[in-house]
Amino acid sequence: MYDTITFLTDFGLRDDFVGVCRGVMKRIAPDALVIDLSHGIAAQAVARGALVLARALPYLPPAVHLAVVDPGVGGPRRAVAIKSGRGRVFVGPDNGLLTLAADRGPIEAARSLTNARYHLEPVSRTFHARDIFAPVAAHLAAGAHFDDLGEEIDPASLVRLDLPVAALAGGELHATIVDVDRFGNLELNVTSAQIAQLGLRPGQRVELWFALNPYYAILAETYAGAGRGELILYEDSYGAYAIAISGGNAASLTEAVAGDELRIRVVGGG
Amino acid sequence: MYDTITFLTDFGLRDDFVGVCRGVMKRIAPDALVIDLSHGIAAQAVARGALVLARALPYLPPAVHLAVVDPGVGGPRRAVAIKSGRGRVFVGPDNGLLTLAADRGPIEAARSLTNARYHLEPVSRTFHARDIFAPVAAHLAAGAHFDDLGEEIDPASLVRLDLPVAALAGGELHATIVDVDRFGNLELNVTSAQIAQLGLRPGQRVELWFALNPYYAILAETYAGAGRGELILYEDSYGAYAIAISGGNAASLTEAVAGDELRIRVVGGG
Amino acid sequence: MYDTITFLTDFGLRDDFVGVCRGVMKRIAPDALVIDLSHGIAAQAVARGALVLARALPYLPPAVHLAVVDPGVGGPRRAVAIKSGRGRVFVGPDNGLLTLAADRGPIEAARSLTNARYHLEPVSRTFHARDIFAPVAAHLAAGAHFDDLGEEIDPASLVRLDLPVAALAGGELHATIVDVDRFGNLELNVTSAQIAQLGLRPGQRVELWFALNPYYAILAETYAGAGRGELILYEDSYGAYAIAISGGNAASLTEAVAGDELRIRVVGGG
Repeated sequence: MYDTITFLTDFGLRDDFVGVCRGVMKRIAPDALVIDLSHGIAAQAVARGALVLARALPYLPPAVHLAVVDPGVGGPRRAVAIKSGRGRVFVGPDNGLLTLAADRGPIEAARSLTNARYHLEPVSRTFHARDIFAPVAAHLAAGAHFDDLGEEIDPASLVRLDLPVAALAGGELHATIVDVDRFGNLELNVTSAQIAQLGLRPGQRVELWFALNPYYAILAETYAGAGRGELILYEDSYGAYAIAISGGNAASLTEAVAGDELRIRVVGGG
Repeated sequence: MYDTITFLTDFGLRDDFVGVCRGVMKRIAPDALVIDLSHGIAAQAVARGALVLARALPYLPPAVHLAVVDPGVGGPRRAVAIKSGRGRVFVGPDNGLLTLAADRGPIEAARSLTNARYHLEPVSRTFHARDIFAPVAAHLAAGAHFDDLGEEIDPASLVRLDLPVAALAGGELHATIVDVDRFGNLELNVTSAQIAQLGLRPGQRVELWFALNPYYAILAETYAGAGRGELILYEDSYGAYAIAISGGNAASLTEAVAGDELRIRVVGGG
Repeated sequence: MYDTITFLTDFGLRDDFVGVCRGVMKRIAPDALVIDLSHGIAAQAVARGALVLARALPYLPPAVHLAVVDPGVGGPRRAVAIKSGRGRVFVGPDNGLLTLAADRGPIEAARSLTNARYHLEPVSRTFHARDIFAPVAAHLAAGAHFDDLGEEIDPASLVRLDLPVAALAGGELHATIVDVDRFGNLELNVTSAQIAQLGLRPGQRVELWFALNPYYAILAETYAGAGRGELILYEDSYGAYAIAISGGNAASLTEAVAGDELRIRVVGGG
């Protein structure tokens, strides 16, 4: 039914967490291809994992999308599988990690993973990725029926995240840094519609206020659209806006980290 | 014979060491699946690699288990293959890395990798993973006979590690931190039998003495079994005991590192 | 035609860049095996990527060699595919990353990737790995014809790197640290012919001058060829020379980083 499992976690690759889950899946579904989407989500950063999964989805084949960022493991949060449009199934904790992506399907059905037949025996209290989520994902790839995974649950009851939304106020755009990538680029929760509302056009200059420190940047289309060392505000490859330095590292310069807020104000020119 | 090779090293993923070994294996055994168990073992930490391999084993399919943490490369240590129970073969240096896992089989036979037919030509002095171990693992996956790998050796002659064992003395448990994982959890060499000997029960409090600094912790069953920010002592997913902070990073708080010793003393209550 | 794609980038594994490219390739070429050669090339370090790719090549099967270290993305640099000897095709930016390896084939033909049929739609300005390079690599693996990828270009017009070459002057060898690996070993741009020119023989001592600081080292054949804690100069597993410490980390001791120059001078003895 599914020949591919995509795999996203906050486990990192230093320990054997990912490798052990792969071993478990290989035993259950020898022929499935497992694609590591990312294991570099910051530890326990559920919202970050949800955003990465949702934005990557259009580039991934129909698959079992296994995702585990699970600070509540061993507590009362449910373990779930969600059937969504275009042949996608999501497996992971019910803490908002899956719904941002799954809702785009839209969601067709959801199950609580209560059927122990698809879990390892015994189930540990702290490593449900190995003992519940990876086995269920692999059993789906090996032909198990979605409806057999456990009790049906109302999709409306699944946890949804309340993510910060950028807002225009007093001629300024109040935005949040969603993440800092490997190159030091700062990803914002800013859409092109909001940039248009600000009246910004390519080549125009903006002030970026990080707490009390202002920086000047230019609205550019590519890294090459500014002088070397100059800050740019640009539409990134997923359609959100981001801040970078041509040939440099914007995070090092600004000392900004994920979760920081900033204000964007048009200076003029252009 | 074997369709899977599991692969554990201390190479990290920054360099091309792992990728080159995968290229070598693909040329020899095009159809084998290579599962990365972990490449994040601390550099030259043989004991750590041995523990990770041994505890992961029950979750891995029967396979050629390739493992390389090899500070003695180029020196007199032997290169070996070990046939163990349940269809497992271990390939790597004879420095104790393999025996902790292989002895559980138990070991059926061992060979010194002296048959150059299964090595790359020439063999470098410093990268036997690429030139000897990966080729041998791949040849096994491609159908080579175990007995053809080189001279037979006595399994009793294989190197075994002398690992620190936790001990009860003066009403305290003297333990060692075996590793610190990605989440800052401190893994101990403590078994549930030893916890029982201390007379500890869930909900009871203990003092943890790291050198001269005492911390209080609670014996809990899950991360959620304590208040946010509170230290817990709990049975981890592999059946050993570990120290964590609910919603935090125990390694950052205590500044403990792998190899540190600590004493565990019951306070009472519970 | 090609059943394997090797994949080298400077993306790291913290973000989802690599995972998304794998998703894209799986959709286009479901049966291709993707081997991660390395994603740990330092950010935007084109020369480093070129060296790693070139030296790994003899260990890799004939394949589509996808490589992306691309500081000029979105600018005027060309996107190219290069057909080289022994059934190899290289895909990536035309910035010197590919030619060091491809020239060894030698190069048989080159195409500019101007045929949008093999790209994602739309193509972003900042993530050509996802939108152009990975799709083209996958289409080649799925049977697309090289000549259909875009306009033919003159192989002589491809960008070549001008790499630093070690030189003998005044009885000293002036060398450059090409990279520092995971173990703290310092890789040099020094060949065995140059070591012979210096008149160096195993067991002999050399002075290593890092800026103003001299260190003593011994020319050894393996890590085990020197006392614990002693610096060694040795031929590494790719045939270049490197500096290491037996049982230690040469980069930590010397504080040297990639790009640093040093002078090697024979002391005598041996």
